[in-house]
Parts: sequence; structure tokens; C-alpha cells
Amino acid sequence: MERPFIFINSAMSADGKISTKERKQIKISGEIDFNRMDKLRAESDAIMVGIGTVLADDPSLTVKSSELREKRLKAAMDENPVRIIVDSKARTPIDSDIFKKGEGKIFIIVSESAPSERIKQLQEKATIVVSGKNIVDLPQAMEELNKRGIKRLMVEGGATLNWGLLSDGLVDEIYSFVGNLIFGGRDAPTLIDGEGFSKNDIQRLELMDAERMEDGILLKWKVLKE
Amino acid sequence: MERPFIFINSAMSADGKISTKERKQIKISGEIDFNRMDKLRAESDAIMVGIGTVLADDPSLTVKSSELREKRLKAAMDENPVRIIVDSKARTPIDSDIFKKGEGKIFIIVSESAPSERIKQLQEKATIVVSGKNIVDLPQAMEELNKRGIKRLMVEGGATLNWGLLSDGLVDEIYSFVGNLIFGGRDAPTLIDGEGFSKNDIQRLELMDAERMEDGILLKWKVLKE
Repeated sequence: MERPFIFINSAMSADGKISTKERKQIKISGEIDFNRMDKLRAESDAIMVGIGTVLADDPSLTVKSSELREKRLKAAMDENPVRIIVDSKARTPIDSDIFKKGEGKIFIIVSESAPSERIKQLQEKATIVVSGKNIVDLPQAMEELNKRGIKRLMVEGGATLNWGLLSDGLVDEIYSFVGNLIFGGRDAPTLIDGEGFSKNDIQRLELMDAERMEDGILLKWKVLKE
Repeated sequence: MERPFIFINSAMSADGKISTKERKQIKISGEIDFNRMDKLRAESDAIMVGIGTVLADDPSLTVKSSELREKRLKAAMDENPVRIIVDSKARTPIDSDIFKKGEGKIFIIVSESAPSERIKQLQEKATIVVSGKNIVDLPQAMEELNKRGIKRLMVEGGATLNWGLLSDGLVDEIYSFVGNLIFGGRDAPTLIDGEGFSKNDIQRLELMDAERMEDGILLKWKVLKE
């Protein structure tokens, strides 16, 4: 199976949370980290989020720097990387910011269980990719994305998509900025949620780099294959 | 109010978890970090855990290095710091390792709601400190510990006690070793669980130090007072 190089980029509190218990997004990092993220976006073929993140944050996932967008155009690329939502049941709201802001392709990956009425609505706004029966088959979807020319994929969460990709062995690297905040909360989403690994199949990493940045630290992990 | 200097020492996975979803403790760090922790214990007046940690891990909380224990004895201290369990309902099992291993004082902090029968059993093994009606009143308990000569208190979790202390403004510093592992799991305990902070009262920290150690990184945070 051929798939893209896949990395997760995220910011978390010092206790591993990506938002508060109310799922409110809090600014964890500052301008330097923001620019780093924007550059990562501009250098990727596609940016992916899960439907939970779309419903909670309504992100546009565009490249913010006009300089970086122009650089892409000059290299004969679209202004923005392909923006992708993993959305098993096709729940993406038709008035989402991702449809209103920025030029470029949008893919919505749904499963066969998605209501056809919803698919019909969404396919006026985006390219629909169907993969998997009840939920999206991530390995198959990644193979499909690779076929469509996506070789470098940036994942921006949330916690459930991160888990899905990691537990399917589809993540190569994880970049996590650890900010100088504590969110706390047994129900607050963490960097990797989902079902979780069992004692005997814990995922091992290698710390490639640690760089103090603003009031926190950026950790770059490589995901080790067993 | 006078209280001890209080710090949390913990190891967590790269996604902020202190154990797996099954509450199984996994070795997150190696010998260097173990020795660092042992030294922190030996230099403290007391070591504290919550009842959840006692029930899950049954720790003895002793100083492991005989050298460090001798050093304490030579300085006219007990071999081990005072070992303290925060245990609102006096649920500490009578056959816990803490009662079997190591010399030195043991305190169990209970609330007024603890069954007197259980208190009677436990007071043969430990000093009982009563504080708070239904659950332990942590600020009051810390004042009491201070009066009893505890000026430097090391907290070793778990996630709920960490939250209780932090949300009551009782924590001065947090040392967290971030290991090269992902546990994942929406139900796995994190460094700070409990109810969690709301958007408008997030706890801010200052990163005092970051030191690569073994296959992870040790982060030392100062808890900022508003």
C-alpha cells in the first residue's frame, strides 16, 4: 500500500489537552508558532481534520500568509493545499467556513453509511470520497489520496481522528507544541483520545527535536514502527 | 495561611496520560529519572498520594537508595519522609504496601464522613488527620501539615489529587517527565483530571527548565499566581 507521508501538528496544554472541557479552543501558542503552522500548511499537499473539529471550531484551514500563497501559485499549485474533512456520516454543515474562505480543492471523505441526501448537498461544495462501510476506512482512504497526488498530508486533529490514524499505523511524525497552561478535566479532549492503547501495545516514539519557543516548547516525535 | 512548598512530580506519555485506559502503570521513564525521583523524595519532608493511586498501584513511597536513607538518618531525620494518603472516606486497605514497607511516619488525611470503624482500623497503622466534612479540605489539611513540621511536600498523583491541589491554588511547581510513548484513550487518566478549568480561569505556568533525559524530556513548570 502506498500512502502519503502523514504528520500531526497540534498544540496542547502542559497536561496534554487540546481544548477545555467545554471544547472551547484556547490560544495555546503565539505568533511564532502560528507562522510555523502556516508554513507547514503551505508546504503540504493537503490538510486534514475530523468532523468533530469542524463542528467545534469551524476552521477554514487556509494558508494565512499572502506571501506563502503567492509562492504556491508561482509553483503552479493552488493557493491552498487540498482541505480534507474525515466525516463518516457527512455531517459537515453546508455553511461551514471551509466552503466560504479561500480558494482550492476540498475533499470530504465519507463512509457508505452517509445519508445520500447529505452527500448530494455536499457534493455541490466539495469532492466526495467514499471509503469504508459504517465509518471511514482510513488506510483505504489514504491510499486513495495518494493516488490523487497527495504525498504530504498534515493532520490538524482532533483527538479522535488523531487516534484513528495513529492506531491504524498511518502517522509518521507528531509535532506538538506544549504550552504554559493547564486545562485539567477528565473530559477535556487530549492530543490522542479514542479507545486508547492497551498495556501491551503502547505506541513508541522517538524524540527527534525539542525547541523552546515563546512560553512553551515544541516537541517533534517520530512514530516508531514495530 | 501558612502551608508547605508543594510540588507535583509525575511522568506522562507524549499525549499527557499518566497510565493506560485500564489504569495500568507503565514504565514511562528509566533509571536516571527514577534516581532523580528518589532524590526528590529523600529531600522532601513528606510524600503525598491520593487514595485512587493507592488502590490502583499500591505504592510504598519509600526512599529506595540506601545511601539517601542513611544520609537522612545522619541528619537526625526518619529514614523515609512522612508518607501521606489523602483518603476522604478512609478506604486505604489495611494490607497496603505502605504499611508493610519502610520505616517512618504515615498520615492518612480523612474527612468527617469517613466511617469510624475504618478510622479505628487505620489508626493502628497510621496517624489519622481529619479535615473537611464530606471530602478532605485540602487548604486546611495543608495548614495542619505545616504545623506538624512539613515544609516541603512532594505530590506523586494521581490525576484527581493533582487537580484538587491545583484548583485550590496549593501547587507551587510541577515537574513532568514527558516520555516517548503514546497511551491514547479518552478515559485514560491525564496529568491533571478532575472537573477542569473553564475558558476564563485557565491556570498559567512558567516553563522554568526543559532538559532532555533518556528518551524523553523533563519539563519544570512554575505555577503562576494570578
